[in-house]
Amino acid sequence: MTQRKVKAAVLLIGDELLSGRTQDINLQAIAKYLAPLGVQVAEARIVADTPDEIIAAVNALRVKYDYVFTTGGIGPTHDDITVDCVAKAFGVGLVMNEEIAEILRRRPAPPEVMESRLRMARVPEGAGLIRNPFGPHGFHVGNVYVMAGVPQVMQAMIGALAGLLRRGETIRSRSVTAHLTESQIARRLGEIQDRYPHVDLGSYPFYRKDRSGTTLVMRGSVEADLDAMLAEVRQLIVDLGDTPVNEERG
Amino acid sequence: MTQRKVKAAVLLIGDELLSGRTQDINLQAIAKYLAPLGVQVAEARIVADTPDEIIAAVNALRVKYDYVFTTGGIGPTHDDITVDCVAKAFGVGLVMNEEIAEILRRRPAPPEVMESRLRMARVPEGAGLIRNPFGPHGFHVGNVYVMAGVPQVMQAMIGALAGLLRRGETIRSRSVTAHLTESQIARRLGEIQDRYPHVDLGSYPFYRKDRSGTTLVMRGSVEADLDAMLAEVRQLIVDLGDTPVNEERG
Repeated sequence: MTQRKVKAAVLLIGDELLSGRTQDINLQAIAKYLAPLGVQVAEARIVADTPDEIIAAVNALRVKYDYVFTTGGIGPTHDDITVDCVAKAFGVGLVMNEEIAEILRRRPAPPEVMESRLRMARVPEGAGLIRNPFGPHGFHVGNVYVMAGVPQVMQAMIGALAGLLRRGETIRSRSVTAHLTESQIARRLGEIQDRYPHVDLGSYPFYRKDRSGTTLVMRGSVEADLDAMLAEVRQLIVDLGDTPVNEERG
Repeated sequence: MTQRKVKAAVLLIGDELLSGRTQDINLQAIAKYLAPLGVQVAEARIVADTPDEIIAAVNALRVKYDYVFTTGGIGPTHDDITVDCVAKAFGVGLVMNEEIAEILRRRPAPPEVMESRLRMARVPEGAGLIRNPFGPHGFHVGNVYVMAGVPQVMQAMIGALAGLLRRGETIRSRSVTAHLTESQIARRLGEIQDRYPHVDLGSYPFYRKDRSGTTLVMRGSVEADLDAMLAEVRQLIVDLGDTPVNEERG
């Protein structure tokens, strides 16, 4: 029986991602982690460290998708406002989570430093934890999952998601590369797509010094459809006098 | 006299950016290109190759920001639907742009291939061109600027934007790094931020094998404010027994 689709949004929070200072790598890491769980990232947004923008994005995305995953803004400084904004989006207060607080208290610090550090133990009322084996946890409230922005810390939290999420149908893929231009294959590629409405056929041209071409990527939940479509795409490439290369299954 | 702020959104279009297959690098390139022009990227969205999602995002962003820059979905294949969607978002039809068509016709091709290739000459009625010195142009309609998704092609188009955009106040930056934790500096950093409401003070922790620390980034339009804030941040670092390093001005 086919499981239903489980769709997610990713909300990346931070001025540094919009100013050009920092190249985001969390979106791809989250998408790759979620794919085998059958959770598809259907949209992503990147917003600044501005309360109204964060709250509006959380509320827009949480009603539209099964899950929302946020990164960034959960440290101890004044510009870390994600926790406050998520609580406001849900209309709930903040509480001190004793399990996070206990981790934060393990390392000694002067009272003022500890007070700042304990800001990271604040979570919205009713939140559950996203356990990080190496440091402070993230949390989830409703269908919103809040993780760190620093990639190493985000990656330490993400492993805990598998145990927390409902799984959906898994999207499989096939890909194959042709040394043909998109215009050469466009018409027949469109006809193939029309015959397989439940498979997404993406066409990605590349330009390299040695050789240019197009990679065709098929994504869908039914392996037999993917294999049949791949055979048609492979034939299209051969018919145009080229040799299909770099076939991949995912 | 202070120029007003000019704010932009970036809309990245493509299934491959959400599936985890492709790591986007266009957002950072666009943000870095626009910054010296005084055009600030205030939000970014990434949507799939789905007409309703693209149209909704174009319409949500174009009324909210001075400019919208899109990447992706302007090739000749069936999954290239950005042009159609942007036209629909504006409620206008598509026309063949003869200047783009002329470029596309230069390289000979069989009629069927040329027909597919000429799909790339379609633009919404009333569109102007974003001239690409190396190949087909992008276009702009209203305040929406449509560029290619392949980074080399996008970068060939982006250079033409300077001549097309209204400029705003330029955001300058200062940054300095401390080998201190965020919790150690959090309270005083918040106090410094409070004294300079027109400068954004961001705090970015990093964790490296050799040494961890925090980079402080100040962003604003008034150089004197930035210098004064930097002096205070530097003093904070010294007061805590550390030495400020890696100072940068941008």
